[in-house]
Amino acid sequence: MEKKKLSLIVFSGDFDRAVAAFTLATGAAAVNWEVTLFFTFWGLNLIKKNKGHAAIGRGVLDRFFNFLLGGRNNLPLSRLNFGGLSPRLMTGMMRGRNVATLAELIAAAHELKVKFVACEMAMNILGIKRGDLIDEVQEVIGVPTFLQYSQDAQVMFI
Amino acid sequence: MEKKKLSLIVFSGDFDRAVAAFTLATGAAAVNWEVTLFFTFWGLNLIKKNKGHAAIGRGVLDRFFNFLLGGRNNLPLSRLNFGGLSPRLMTGMMRGRNVATLAELIAAAHELKVKFVACEMAMNILGIKRGDLIDEVQEVIGVPTFLQYSQDAQVMFI
Amino acid sequence: MEKKKLSLIVFSGDFDRAVAAFTLATGAAAVNWEVTLFFTFWGLNLIKKNKGHAAIGRGVLDRFFNFLLGGRNNLPLSRLNFGGLSPRLMTGMMRGRNVATLAELIAAAHELKVKFVACEMAMNILGIKRGDLIDEVQEVIGVPTFLQYSQDAQVMFI
Repeated sequence: MEKKKLSLIVFSGDFDRAVAAFTLATGAAAVNWEVTLFFTFWGLNLIKKNKGHAAIGRGVLDRFFNFLLGGRNNLPLSRLNFGGLSPRLMTGMMRGRNVATLAELIAAAHELKVKFVACEMAMNILGIKRGDLIDEVQEVIGVPTFLQYSQDAQVMFI
Repeated sequence: MEKKKLSLIVFSGDFDRAVAAFTLATGAAAVNWEVTLFFTFWGLNLIKKNKGHAAIGRGVLDRFFNFLLGGRNNLPLSRLNFGGLSPRLMTGMMRGRNVATLAELIAAAHELKVKFVACEMAMNILGIKRGDLIDEVQEVIGVPTFLQYSQDAQVMFI
Repeated sequence: MEKKKLSLIVFSGDFDRAVAAFTLATGAAAVNWEVTLFFTFWGLNLIKKNKGHAAIGRGVLDRFFNFLLGGRNNLPLSRLNFGGLSPRLMTGMMRGRNVATLAELIAAAHELKVKFVACEMAMNILGIKRGDLIDEVQEVIGVPTFLQYSQDAQVMFI
């Protein structure tokens, strides 16, 4: 039997949507699906290295955007953000219940052979370079390549 | 011919996205598709019983979250919320044009044999118990079971 | 070999999500996929003619909504909107890097034979008439017809 495939376009950089994406990815990989995460736009924020964010970007507008966006440790919730309070609350709730946190989900996804790819065009728009991204990212690709990888896959936009 | 299948991950608790999800679900069920709605994160809010919301949740953080989230009768719009004014406006507009409201869409979906399932992990994170959910919910499942149910289905994340 | 198909439900009217939708659509069409864009709810805003927006809509509530929503030239970002500043910044960044802007993406999509269809029910709710939409829109359809068009397609909700 052919291997089942799941491809997620991770567009959102919101904490809760990121958790949903990684939960789907690891859940599918755990039952032996071939999973690809295609990070684009704000989703690129999830796979940036944790260096000073203001240092990322080629021009001043890029720097401004990237500074405002921050990094993996201060993602907003899509709702009820309260100046950054809620993600911390939610991480606490997750930890209290033995549910994995985002950093753990990233590690688990990598361990389970989930493929991390980044969107070339969005990197170009936002002025993000390959070196700004974590090492787990295997490729920088465009839409046609993503579509090719996702042939016969379940595809979702998050 | 095999029956067509549609599976929607209802992540959002926004009024407009909920309307979109139920419209897709009932539209598909009406032409004889097999439809599953998988409610997760804020989407769980759509299928909570209408008791006092502050009473739902196992701990104080849960209660806080659930209180803030409210219930089915005060969902925000993803845009133009104006302190809760717009959903009421929109319901009025829907009613004036004989378009079903959310409560009617839930009833219609149930009538059309749309399957309601809830995400185990999100319930765990948010401290929601089976008894907090409406009776139309048939099962509480994890991601692998959802993926299995959604084999050969059109899947969307809302 | 059968032609590959991509169907996107364009629910969001946010600038960044619109760019993502058109980028996917044109990327797929460029490698010869059959692409359908189904505009619904706020997404209808992307395909409205640029006449005075307050003039669109059948009743006073419609006018109010449509006035608030504005048109294609003042779409908000889903994040970091800053009173309309960011879309202009982003357009500037896109232009500086030779990435197509939204108007160019719409033209490119049309050129590449991407099919534009509009959601009948959402038009009904929001009081938008056929004449309010740009000429590139080929049909006004309901969910069952959209599902039929999207048979064997990759479907995403944006």
